[in-house]
Order: sequence, then structure tokens, then C-alpha cells
Amino acid sequence: MGLTIGVDIGGTKIAAGVVDEEGSILETCKVATPPTSEGVIDAIAEAVRTVSTGHEISAVGIGAAGYVDEKRATVLFAPNINWRHEALKDKVEQRVGLPVVVENDANAAAWGEYKFGAGAGHDDVICITLGTGLGGGVIIGNKLRRGRFGVAGEFGHVRVVPDGLLCGCGSQGCWEQYASGRALVRYARQRSVATPENAGILLSLGDGTPEGIEGRHVSQAARRGDPVAVDSFRELARWAGAGLADLASLFDPSAFIIGGGVSDEGDLVLDPIRKSFRRWLVGSQWRPHAQVLAAQLGGKAGLVGAADLARQG
Amino acid sequence: MGLTIGVDIGGTKIAAGVVDEEGSILETCKVATPPTSEGVIDAIAEAVRTVSTGHEISAVGIGAAGYVDEKRATVLFAPNINWRHEALKDKVEQRVGLPVVVENDANAAAWGEYKFGAGAGHDDVICITLGTGLGGGVIIGNKLRRGRFGVAGEFGHVRVVPDGLLCGCGSQGCWEQYASGRALVRYARQRSVATPENAGILLSLGDGTPEGIEGRHVSQAARRGDPVAVDSFRELARWAGAGLADLASLFDPSAFIIGGGVSDEGDLVLDPIRKSFRRWLVGSQWRPHAQVLAAQLGGKAGLVGAADLARQG
Amino acid sequence: MGLTIGVDIGGTKIAAGVVDEEGSILETCKVATPPTSEGVIDAIAEAVRTVSTGHEISAVGIGAAGYVDEKRATVLFAPNINWRHEALKDKVEQRVGLPVVVENDANAAAWGEYKFGAGAGHDDVICITLGTGLGGGVIIGNKLRRGRFGVAGEFGHVRVVPDGLLCGCGSQGCWEQYASGRALVRYARQRSVATPENAGILLSLGDGTPEGIEGRHVSQAARRGDPVAVDSFRELARWAGAGLADLASLFDPSAFIIGGGVSDEGDLVLDPIRKSFRRWLVGSQWRPHAQVLAAQLGGKAGLVGAADLARQG
Amino acid sequence: MGLTIGVDIGGTKIAAGVVDEEGSILETCKVATPPTSEGVIDAIAEAVRTVSTGHEISAVGIGAAGYVDEKRATVLFAPNINWRHEALKDKVEQRVGLPVVVENDANAAAWGEYKFGAGAGHDDVICITLGTGLGGGVIIGNKLRRGRFGVAGEFGHVRVVPDGLLCGCGSQGCWEQYASGRALVRYARQRSVATPENAGILLSLGDGTPEGIEGRHVSQAARRGDPVAVDSFRELARWAGAGLADLASLFDPSAFIIGGGVSDEGDLVLDPIRKSFRRWLVGSQWRPHAQVLAAQLGGKAGLVGAADLARQG
Repeated sequence: MGLTIGVDIGGTKIAAGVVDEEGSILETCKVATPPTSEGVIDAIAEAVRTVSTGHEISAVGIGAAGYVDEKRATVLFAPNINWRHEALKDKVEQRVGLPVVVENDANAAAWGEYKFGAGAGHDDVICITLGTGLGGGVIIGNKLRRGRFGVAGEFGHVRVVPDGLLCGCGSQGCWEQYASGRALVRYARQRSVATPENAGILLSLGDGTPEGIEGRHVSQAARRGDPVAVDSFRELARWAGAGLADLASLFDPSAFIIGGGVSDEGDLVLDPIRKSFRRWLVGSQWRPHAQVLAAQLGGKAGLVGAADLARQG
Repeated sequence: MGLTIGVDIGGTKIAAGVVDEEGSILETCKVATPPTSEGVIDAIAEAVRTVSTGHEISAVGIGAAGYVDEKRATVLFAPNINWRHEALKDKVEQRVGLPVVVENDANAAAWGEYKFGAGAGHDDVICITLGTGLGGGVIIGNKLRRGRFGVAGEFGHVRVVPDGLLCGCGSQGCWEQYASGRALVRYARQRSVATPENAGILLSLGDGTPEGIEGRHVSQAARRGDPVAVDSFRELARWAGAGLADLASLFDPSAFIIGGGVSDEGDLVLDPIRKSFRRWLVGSQWRPHAQVLAAQLGGKAGLVGAADLARQG
Repeated sequence: MGLTIGVDIGGTKIAAGVVDEEGSILETCKVATPPTSEGVIDAIAEAVRTVSTGHEISAVGIGAAGYVDEKRATVLFAPNINWRHEALKDKVEQRVGLPVVVENDANAAAWGEYKFGAGAGHDDVICITLGTGLGGGVIIGNKLRRGRFGVAGEFGHVRVVPDGLLCGCGSQGCWEQYASGRALVRYARQRSVATPENAGILLSLGDGTPEGIEGRHVSQAARRGDPVAVDSFRELARWAGAGLADLASLFDPSAFIIGGGVSDEGDLVLDPIRKSFRRWLVGSQWRPHAQVLAAQLGGKAGLVGAADLARQG
Repeated sequence: MGLTIGVDIGGTKIAAGVVDEEGSILETCKVATPPTSEGVIDAIAEAVRTVSTGHEISAVGIGAAGYVDEKRATVLFAPNINWRHEALKDKVEQRVGLPVVVENDANAAAWGEYKFGAGAGHDDVICITLGTGLGGGVIIGNKLRRGRFGVAGEFGHVRVVPDGLLCGCGSQGCWEQYASGRALVRYARQRSVATPENAGILLSLGDGTPEGIEGRHVSQAARRGDPVAVDSFRELARWAGAGLADLASLFDPSAFIIGGGVSDEGDLVLDPIRKSFRRWLVGSQWRPHAQVLAAQLGGKAGLVGAADLARQG
């Protein structure tokens, strides 16, 4: 079973690519994400047709945000697209005439990193995606663990603060409210209101107001030493590392892989995460410590992972 | 491989038993836990000899509190006995001349319940032991998951309150400080100080003072409707259920099994746990709900589970 | 100095009234709150003229939401109207030709209750207004305490949960996010999502959905025994009472007076507040307990209080 | 009324001194604190006799830890000495033949600083004593505010973390568990376990173990740049500053005065406190900010304050 196609449905773009057994992408295309549910299915079918030209394709893997059922066929709930119990597998199979596997996008990215990226040589790996929100995937014994109903690995919605920040999921105090790109921006804005004198660089990158601060400004300002920006990354790292310590108590993996846009900053953010991880790791002097690794595939992890999961059937 | 012996090392008693393939205990004995590390090993050997008389035994499984390494041979750290990197497997094998497997006691109990108790028919189960502290075990795909270094499933030390109560493990805000027998007693004592008029039954069961309240008093008083005792169980259930919701986000099991002394109260404690679980379950309207089941083997789960794990080698 | 006028600037209505030395309202009028800052000042002037006809008035007191400076002349910041360093005293004096005193609306209400309502006979009183948000006022030694800069008694923005809910003030974890009318509705909606089977009455009062639940529905449903509604009031009371316990540690008043719309429910909400207060009161067995009283003047406390503060000059 | 005597009852020493109207100490003596309640009263009487020799004394002021009633006569509850409703004023008056005033020790220290120390020129001052625990005093309108029952200003027991650390007072999450000398040592020990490589200097000052770290080690190590020690002071400052922001919302003083052993480090600890204060001050851009000042009288504030309160009768 040689080539498969991976599809990554993002909030703004749908990417499709032909992927071989080594995880290399042979062909790729991107289209804007249509606003309607049916439009998205059309766009997937079209993208699959486009990239498959001239290749013999055996299956298609689709990574989508949201809950996917245990048969990897139906999207139970998608936060961005209006999918509720959407039979995505059947609908796409009818259009493209190939076997389709649907997977949660963070699971797909986790699998991509595990198999072809930073996870090489590890059997038990937890992947964390620090993007706008916080997602992840669980590999135990070299298998992606999806749970009984297909919805394991929803790290972002573990409660880390009782009575904490409201989350879009309807709960309060979810981890992704404290460790994500959105959290980083909130930290930077709050600190800029209180101590504008320490946010000179940061404020100069946007429109001069705290409200005008965006994620990329915080990264740029932190690299230039802006105290508020650096402190905002530290706060994010505190929460991220403390959460990894909890996951170590639960899963005891040999490695954590940190991906997503926030991780693009490399050791600027990974070093404080490692420090916080050790700070909160229970029994740290009595146990081997899991490694905290940077993801290697960048934004392609989901596409590559989805294609590989489809190959496995 | 017919009969094996399970050994359960508790803080006050060591129990050993001969167990068959159906999980039935054919023979059993109990001795007081000696105060020294060497004494414990002597006592284990003696107990194994005692119960094995007249049986053909193929292996011994030992459940011990603390961290056990991934080879199931060495106790890295035990909270109660002064074991630090103790080669328990080798030492006991030399004494009893049988293959020995060492396992964390909560893992052993989890396995016992999964295989012979409430877990029948489930492939993915999380077991929680609400005893003096809070322990647990993870079964995914019909296998006990021990993590890369053997220390997975340490549920009790997940942080549920940032800057929360100090824990014996050195960290703060650990789940077992809020959901355990010790927590139950603390709730009851604090409430009895503040509103003694609502703790009449409860206070009458001990020496009349809040400090004199013990765990069994809270159970007895709750069954008789004492408002402070009932409210203390509810508080425990709030924390227990919220934690189960987090575990559902992470592991997505088909069932939770609740064991340990606190669970002896049955639906008095399980019903509020179920209510709190649903209250905090993320995406509760979009996903199947895991069952929350009472353990069935009582205090024998650890012994039976350890014996069965030894059988599997 | 006989009659004065009190003005209460609310989000939707401006009320003015002629008040005598016993706190009785002789004449009153209400107009809709205009959308612009200048419009509000016109409306105040017009309302003052309307009610003063036929009375000899010596001064005007205005209660306004927001920060008022220590001279009781300038509104530093108002959350609802677009006032920033607005010289309200001067502007209104020019229009009405009478001495004007500006006061924070919760302070005015506190003074009204202290002087003519539930505070009779007390020298040291803390008033809490549980309306949409949470406000309050401090009376120590029979004087309203405004602080050095005029902004004391901002109870609603004390932090009760580190890293807690975002507040409109820019901070996180403010008390009013947990103990206010808005919090009550949030509790009811969240619980209705998780356990709709316990919210039958509550959901039937609105449009059937959790999002459709409003404050008055929670009150009505609680009086009819709806479990989710009752539990939502209890949650609010837990936070309210715990906060009173903190205020007792700080101010040690002889009484708390609870006003605002939430308090209209009387003992339905006051009894659980009292219970939670005793639960959290530090040193409760070693000290006299402050009383927790229901406000008596209802929505008129602010108007009456503002008028009386103007009388005192 | 010229000279009075101030007595400061500490956990290990009782200090007495003759104080004039300018707050100068003319004569002083110290004795070890006796273990029994009667012994303490004997020691007070003896110390008063010793220092009064050759001076004409008009009154005695005693500062004692714990709750003192509103008549400033009876110690309702003392945490260190076994006093429960102890009629301290009467007993000491009988022995020394002079009018006696009893005051909470943190109140006495607050008054001393307000009148003769850092509070000069301020009418509304909050004093915080960061010693082993956290105490304080409230001055509003140039008067010490003791509350209706004499127990106002118990800052240390305001709840800052729901479900937080247990406190000796029986409650949980009290401010003094997070901002005090004891908290500082806990921070340093916890961090030294997790990251001993960053605590080289700190660990070298004690016996080499985290448990051996004491308060003075943290101070010394922080001055020498030890990362764990510096970070421990920062953590303390975060909590101290956030608490000051809450007190500003409540009392709106013109100045905070920070005393107690922790404050001996000066700007090493005061600067991060100021930073955290601004970070959490609600409406910081719309209001004048209170000053955060270092105390000036050191350990003598309580003695001088008690003497002056006695002078006022």
C-alpha cells in the first residue's frame, strides 16, 4: 500500500497532500475553507482529485477539529464548522471513491510527529499542540490511543483552575485558557495595561494600545527582550509545564513533543516549559524524567499523520 | 499455569493468598507489617511459604505502595516503608524460589477489578481507589498501562488546585488532598468547627470534639442524615467527579471503577460523584458517557490482581 | 437644612426625588437614561427642576456608578456612561444653581441603608449590593469611609480566585464574577447544560434552552424547588458568604447589610449566605459574629442616601 | 501626660520600654517569654517595674498576638500563649498600679509606624507586617480602626486561594500562607527539591538539604543572586502585591507601610511587591496609586505604638 492522501481542515485553509510511506509529501494543494458544511465536503473532494492526478492512491485520511467517533467515520461535534453528527467518511467516500479515515486533527498531528518527526525511537509519547488553543494526542505502545468513544487526548479541556476562566466548551478553568496562543496574548495585554513602561517594544509593534497586541507581536517583542513579552511567555510556560507534570503522573511517557505555533519560538518557550515541568513533577528525584522535545514537522504534521493513519486502515 | 500467589503489602498488614485462574482465593493468611525493610521481606517470604503448602504455585505477584520500575522488579520509592531503589523482586525470589513480579498496589487492584470484578466486558477502564489517599490504574485495550518508566496512573498527584493544599509528595494541590478518606475527615472537622449545630450526630460518635472525628464516624453520621456529614461526602464527591471528567477528556474510557474504603458507602457517595462527573464532563451532550461503577472485590482486589499479573508473567 | 434632592443614575433610568430629614421621599420622577454624556447632564438638570417645584431645596446629591474623586466632584471613570474625568459637580451646579455632591452609587445606597434602613443602631456597617454586579459601601464610626482618593469600598473587584474568570475591569477572579446576578445566571446555565433533567422548571420558564435562562427565571424556579435553580443560589451564597468572612477579618463590622436585586429573594438567599459566612469566618468560636441583615429600602436606597449625603455637605 | 511604657509580648521575648511623646525610647529591657500564662503576667509586671525606675509613668500599653476585645482589656484568643478570654488589663493593673491598655501587636506596630515612622503625613494608612506570619493594622482618618468587636485588620486570614493551603487558624487559603516568612521558606524548599542546580548558594548556606533551608538563608542567597532564592522572593512578592491591590479596592489608603522581618530586605522585596501591586490594581489607569513604603522603626514599632496608644487612653 504505497501512496495515501492526507487532508487537514483548518479554520481558514484546507490542505491536501500525497504522502509516501516515509512521510514525504509528493504533491500538495491548498484551498480556502468554504463557509458551509456542504462546501467543505466539496472542497475536500476537489482537493483530493487535484493532488491525486498522476498518482495511484489507496486511501484518504482527514484531520478535523472536534470530536470524531470511535469508528473514525462521523464528526460528533466540530467547534468551527457547523458539524453535528456529520457522516464525513461516507460523504467523502461517495465523492472520491477511495477508503476514507477521519481523525481528530490534533491526533493526526500527534501521529505524524510520533512516526516521522520528533518521536522517532519512542514507544510512549504525548504530543501537545500549542496553537490558538491546546490539543494533543496519546501514543502508548506505538499505537494512537483514541479511547473507547474516540475522544481521548482532549488535553485542552482538563480543568487546571477550579472556578477559572470561562472556556468556549462551556466549562471553566480549562488548560487551554492558560496555555495557548490565545492565553499568551491575554497575558501580554493585561500586563501592558498595568505596566506600560515595561511594554515599550511590544506596544510599538501594534497600534500602540494593549488591545492591538497580537500573537506575533509578543514573539517579536520577546526576542528583542521586551520585559512584558518575556514575562508573558514565562507565564504560559508555567502553566504548560505544570500540565506536563500532571500528564507524566497519568501517562508516564518517555517524551513530550510540543508543537503548534507557540512552539515555533523554540527554546525561548521550551526552556521555561522544561523548568516548570521539573518544578511540578511529582517524585522528580525518584523517577526518570520524560524528555520535552520540539516538534519537527511544523504545520505539516497533521496532513502527514492523517495520510499515514489512512494507510494503516 | 494454574495457581499463583498474590501479596498485598499494606501499612499495617501483609496479606498473601493463593489465587486460581478465575480469580478465586483458595488459601489466605495475614501478618502484621514489620517496621523494618528487611523484616517486611522476611514476612513476605514466610507468608508465601505458609499459603503455598499443599498447592503447586507457579509465580508470586506483590502489590506495594510507591513507584515500581518498568521491569516490575525494583521499588524506586515507597512512602510508608523505607524503600529507596529496593530490589524487591530479586530478594523475594531468592527466598521463595519462584518467579516474582512487583507491581504498584493500586495498579494491582485495578487489574483485579478489571479482570474479575466490575470491569467485566470493558476494554478501556480507569480504576480509582479512594482509600486514605487516592490511587488508580489504567487499562487500555485490555492491558494494564504502566508507562515508560512504570509509574503511570499516579492519579492522586495530579494538581487540581494551583497553590492548593500541601501534599506529602512535596507538591501542592494534589487531587488526593481533595478526594480521599483523609480529605473527607478534614471536611467534616472544618464544618464541625464552623457549624457545630449541624454536626450533632457526627460529634456524638467520637469524643465530642471536631478533632476526634474519624472516617467511620462520617460514614455512620451520613447514613443517619447528619447535615455536616452529608455535606462532607458531597464535597468529596464534587472533587472526585470533577477529576473523573478530566480523566474522561484524557483517556476516554468506557467505565470508571471506584474502589477503596470511601466507596464502601455505595450510592451515598457514588451518586453525587456521578452528578459531579456529568456536571464537569466537557462536551457532555456530544459524546457517550463513561459509566461510573462501584468496585466489587473490596479489599481483595489488590491481592487477586497481583496474583493474576504474576500468572501472565 | 430641610429638603434635599437625591439623584440615582442607572443604566436605563435616572431617578430623582425630594427627600426630608427622616429619609422620606416627598416627590419623585424618573426619565430614561440618555445615550450621550451631555444628554445625561441635561436629564439630571431637568429631573431636578421637575421634582423641586414647590419645595425649598438646599442641595443635590447624585449617585453614579464608577470612581468618584475625593472631592466628590469629578467622575474619574464610569463603566456605563462614557465619562472620563467628568466634572459632574460643576456642570450640574451651573444648571441647577444648587450645591451638588457626587457620590459612588453603591456608597450612596450604603449610606441610605445605614441611616434609614437596616443599619439603624449600628455604628460600623458594611453594605453589599448584589445586583447585576457587586458593589458596596463602608461605614465606620458612623461615617461613610471613602478612602484617600474616594474609591474605597470597591468590593466587587477584590480577587477571590487567582487566575479566575475575566472581569470587565481588566482583572481576573473578581468577587463580582462569583457573587452577583450575572454569576447566578451563569451558574444556572452551566448546570442546565450538564443536568437538564434537574432543570425542568427552570428551562420551562424561558425559551427552553440554557442560553435563554434569565435572572428572574432562576428566582422563580428556585421558589418552586427546581434543583438546578436552588443549587445555583447555593453556589452564589457560598461565594458571597466566604467574602463576608474576609470582610469581617478586615473591617470587623457589627452588621452586614445585603441589598440589590438578588437579595429580594430574602431568606432563600440570605440563609445560605449566613451559613457560608459562619463556615469561613476565621476564629468563629472566639469572637462575636456580625449580623447579616436584609436591606430594607430596596431600589430607593441610592436616591435617599445621595440626598442625605448632600444634606450633610 | 508625659511618659508611658510599651510592652511587646513576643513568642520568645518580652520587651518593655519607657517612651516619650515623640516616640523616643528612654529605657528598655528584655526578658525571655515564660511558658505559662501566669508566668507571662509576672514577667510583664517585673519588666514594667524595672524600666519605670526613676521615671514618672502615667500608663502602660501592651501589644499581644491574638484577638483583643473592643474594650482593649481581654485577650479573647492568643495563638501562642494559652490565653482564652484572659482579663489581661485587670491582672496587670493589679500588679503595677497603673492604667493598662491591651492591643493586638500588629495594631500596635501599625500605630507606631503611622505616628512616628513611615506614615508621617498620611491620614489613611494600611500597615502590613510580614514576619513569620502576616499581620496588620488600619488607620483611617488618623485613628486606629479596631472594628466593632476589636478584631479588625486580621489581614493574614483573608482567603486568597479557595481550597488552598491549610492555615493554623482552621481555614484554608489564608493570605499569610502565601505572603510571610514561613511562605518564603516553603517556596525556597520546594524549588530546591525540583531544581537543585539553581539553588547552589542557597543549599550551601544550610546543611545542604532542602529541609535545612531557613529564612535567613533565603535572604543571604538572594542577595548573592541565587536563582531559587530570588525566585522565592518574587513569588512572595506576587502574593503580597496582589493582596495590597485588594486592600486598595477596599480601603483606598494613601500609603501602605510594609514592616516585619521580610521587609528588612528593602527594595529586594519591595520592588517586586510594588510591581505586583500595580499589575493587579483595579482601574490602575483611572485612579491615584497608593505609595508602598518600607517601615522605619523595625522591631520597635510595636513597643512604641503600644506606649503611645496607652498615652491616648
